[in-house]
Amino acid sequence: MKNEVNREIPEEIVVKYGKFEGEFVNIKPYQESTRQVTPVKPKETKLLSSIKEAIIKSGLKDGMTISFHHHFREGDYVMNMVMAEIAALGIKNLSLAPSSIANVHEPLIEHIKNGVVTNITSSGLRDKVGAAISEGIMENPVVIRSHGGRARAIATGDIHIDVAFLGAPSSDEYGNVNGTVGKATCGSLGYAMIDAKYADKVVAITDTLVPYPNTPISIPQTDVDYVVEVEAIGNPEGIAKGATRYTKNPKELLIAEYAAKVIIGSSYYKEGFSFQTGTGGPSLAVTRFLKEAMVKDGIKASFVLGGITNAMVELLEEGLVKKIIDVQDFDHPSAVSLGKNEHHYEIDANMYASSASKGAVINQLDVAILSALEVDLDFNVNVMTGSDGVIRGASGGHSDTSAACNMSIIIAPLIRGRIPTVVERVNTVITPGSSIDVVVTEIGIAVNPSRQDLVEHFKSLDIPQYTIKELQEKAYQIVGHPYPIEYGEKIVALIEYRDGTMIDVVRNV
Amino acid sequence: MKNEVNREIPEEIVVKYGKFEGEFVNIKPYQESTRQVTPVKPKETKLLSSIKEAIIKSGLKDGMTISFHHHFREGDYVMNMVMAEIAALGIKNLSLAPSSIANVHEPLIEHIKNGVVTNITSSGLRDKVGAAISEGIMENPVVIRSHGGRARAIATGDIHIDVAFLGAPSSDEYGNVNGTVGKATCGSLGYAMIDAKYADKVVAITDTLVPYPNTPISIPQTDVDYVVEVEAIGNPEGIAKGATRYTKNPKELLIAEYAAKVIIGSSYYKEGFSFQTGTGGPSLAVTRFLKEAMVKDGIKASFVLGGITNAMVELLEEGLVKKIIDVQDFDHPSAVSLGKNEHHYEIDANMYASSASKGAVINQLDVAILSALEVDLDFNVNVMTGSDGVIRGASGGHSDTSAACNMSIIIAPLIRGRIPTVVERVNTVITPGSSIDVVVTEIGIAVNPSRQDLVEHFKSLDIPQYTIKELQEKAYQIVGHPYPIEYGEKIVALIEYRDGTMIDVVRNV
Repeated sequence: MKNEVNREIPEEIVVKYGKFEGEFVNIKPYQESTRQVTPVKPKETKLLSSIKEAIIKSGLKDGMTISFHHHFREGDYVMNMVMAEIAALGIKNLSLAPSSIANVHEPLIEHIKNGVVTNITSSGLRDKVGAAISEGIMENPVVIRSHGGRARAIATGDIHIDVAFLGAPSSDEYGNVNGTVGKATCGSLGYAMIDAKYADKVVAITDTLVPYPNTPISIPQTDVDYVVEVEAIGNPEGIAKGATRYTKNPKELLIAEYAAKVIIGSSYYKEGFSFQTGTGGPSLAVTRFLKEAMVKDGIKASFVLGGITNAMVELLEEGLVKKIIDVQDFDHPSAVSLGKNEHHYEIDANMYASSASKGAVINQLDVAILSALEVDLDFNVNVMTGSDGVIRGASGGHSDTSAACNMSIIIAPLIRGRIPTVVERVNTVITPGSSIDVVVTEIGIAVNPSRQDLVEHFKSLDIPQYTIKELQEKAYQIVGHPYPIEYGEKIVALIEYRDGTMIDVVRNV
Repeated sequence: MKNEVNREIPEEIVVKYGKFEGEFVNIKPYQESTRQVTPVKPKETKLLSSIKEAIIKSGLKDGMTISFHHHFREGDYVMNMVMAEIAALGIKNLSLAPSSIANVHEPLIEHIKNGVVTNITSSGLRDKVGAAISEGIMENPVVIRSHGGRARAIATGDIHIDVAFLGAPSSDEYGNVNGTVGKATCGSLGYAMIDAKYADKVVAITDTLVPYPNTPISIPQTDVDYVVEVEAIGNPEGIAKGATRYTKNPKELLIAEYAAKVIIGSSYYKEGFSFQTGTGGPSLAVTRFLKEAMVKDGIKASFVLGGITNAMVELLEEGLVKKIIDVQDFDHPSAVSLGKNEHHYEIDANMYASSASKGAVINQLDVAILSALEVDLDFNVNVMTGSDGVIRGASGGHSDTSAACNMSIIIAPLIRGRIPTVVERVNTVITPGSSIDVVVTEIGIAVNPSRQDLVEHFKSLDIPQYTIKELQEKAYQIVGHPYPIEYGEKIVALIEYRDGTMIDVVRNV
């Protein structure tokens, strides 16, 4: 069966998930999911001696669902430590529902082969794990969810977490947790907060046990069943890894300059506007150019959102933005800022981006800068599979932010090496073209014709403007027509749209 | 049927609620209650033009349950404003489930007589409303719940709030609310936070609409459906009314001095201890005496808890306590402190005192100072009905705190006017004697024999010590034997223990 973005979804999958029918068609009232609560009485302790004891006390059994957060990113020790103990205990057939999976989680491949893990849902799958999934090592397809989509799935009960194992940069013995104090400070615990709120059993794993009561409280004692102290939960180096070096690449700087011009030239650029730029060299450069204009024009933003970097913290400290709304931090300075600046505010993933919430912050967002591995003639975006069809990306907040904000801007080079970015048809649709307003490349921009208001408004903009078809043709002129990927028959990943419907599937290669 | 505190509970009530069997007997795992969530999409507004429009949009119908918070205490305008609109709309047969009811809510009497309100659950009932209930104007008995008990009832689903109308000292248009900014700053919104989290529909009513995003966030936009701006939500004078003047009464000062000696003489008085003293002249005096000792002995408390007053704020600012954990503020300085001092931390009622939570803060509390209208030979305490049997008090956190803390101390004069405080049998049991450790009067103290460890430890204490029987006899020697109250047959109030079982009933007078 074909869905709204013209993707073929097998009927049995449509029956189970429904098919994507448009950004806001399948957002309906629902009864919120619930957890089983085991009350803790006076004089009872939550502090356990080991992860093994916590696994046993939690009642974890074959077939259950467990979760982890990805705030430590490439520096995470927790998932591998816990999975090793679980495997040693002989527990099998688990569903793994972390907020995301990083390269550092390569040991998962063995746990999959050994039947410890038989189902996975995640925002991202990197390197070796992604490649192994694409090869088809799992019987059941992985379910890829956006950050907002995961929060929705947990709130609606599509994901029910039996036991959440949450790395806690600091915790007291009763389970009051924050991410701004400790040895491995990751800052915001926005993704973990959701797991703690809905899971039946929650285990806080910390390497920094502090006196009661630990404040500020990101995860409260009322959402934690057990506390375990370990030697180390994460590597601070790894938390900031890969994030955010300012680019000196002329092509990237040109893209960033064009993107900044698009924002500044838009009707959204005024006192009190808001934006999210994310990470990566070009994004930081956009922020830099935008900052110069804001200083020149005397314009201040009401808030910046998202994955936060030091570039955002500088804007806050210089008074150019009034507040930072923070679901995740990508470097150490932003984690430190969250701990000390009252205008740098932590929120959970539900408030950040869920389509099923009583109103997410992205609904109030003016401009979002987003990346793409591929964007096609329908403006559909792929941030998940490479040009070889192998899973190596992450859904993240891409489809959430772009759907909700007033103007979404894709920044991407026209070609990468010998690979075109603007293509006829993306390998995998993560974000439907209806959510994308402007595509910015180093040779110029393409505005989505569905946004005639922007087409009109940008007529006077001094940036080369093309149709998306013209951008694609220029890309193909340079590197030629990409070879078609030879997929197998097996579906290795289901791409769930933020509303829970199926927007695409990924087959083995 | 007789319960654990030897009170006769009619069988049909026992069938519905169960009977009190001991403080921790009926605390069991349960599936948490849930709300119906109506998602808010991008570009949808929550801001409505009037309370009337909000009532209509909320879908409020005959027979539903509505709630309010009591953080404005005697200064509250919200409940009366909303109830007047509801009555004008002709909606009937509502269950009213506010966190408490004050004198200022006298108009409720008319709404009860007119059938707008047919069921009530509350912590307290004062003056005219209490008297009217005691006269028997309601067909169905009021259910009295402690602050922790109400949080438990909401979490377990015993109370399901269809629509919560929450006074918001400040809010943005998307429903981010706090109590530290605005015209009627009440400080902590600890009781309101629970309603917002579990109610199907939540209406934030504010007189101070601020730009988005309003921070700090006590109640997040994800828990609010509608926002209404009105002229005024409360009278700041009334918020602090009746609270906390330091006593000059020699009898009260003597009681306070004895209470402080009990704390200082106990094994709990050491570096990092914690306490809750509440409001009222004698309590403040206890804090004053305790402070002098802490300075002299160089001892610092890890935290103070509860209803917070300026006396606690002074301890924090002087470095004598490390943190304030705050569910409610009783005066303006404490509300201000919450807004500016990072070590003054806001929590909700579930985290404060619920027996059904994954661990309340009171479970970590060393010492609690509590008041009493009556205490009897079994150490049972009455804080609800007067010596005439008329309802005029509030359950508050009395039974919660005393059950959970390490040492609960009742401070009360032996007699009030011509009325004995220490009696053979209290009119109404709010807190079972098993939760009470020490009774302090102006003539000396009585230690609960069930706490032989304290009896032993206090042998050397230079305070006159009596049995509770001796205190009662001395009281009766002075004022004579109290006349028995002539109750009617009708049950006007059910006293629910914090675990949801029935500890006592109140009949009409």
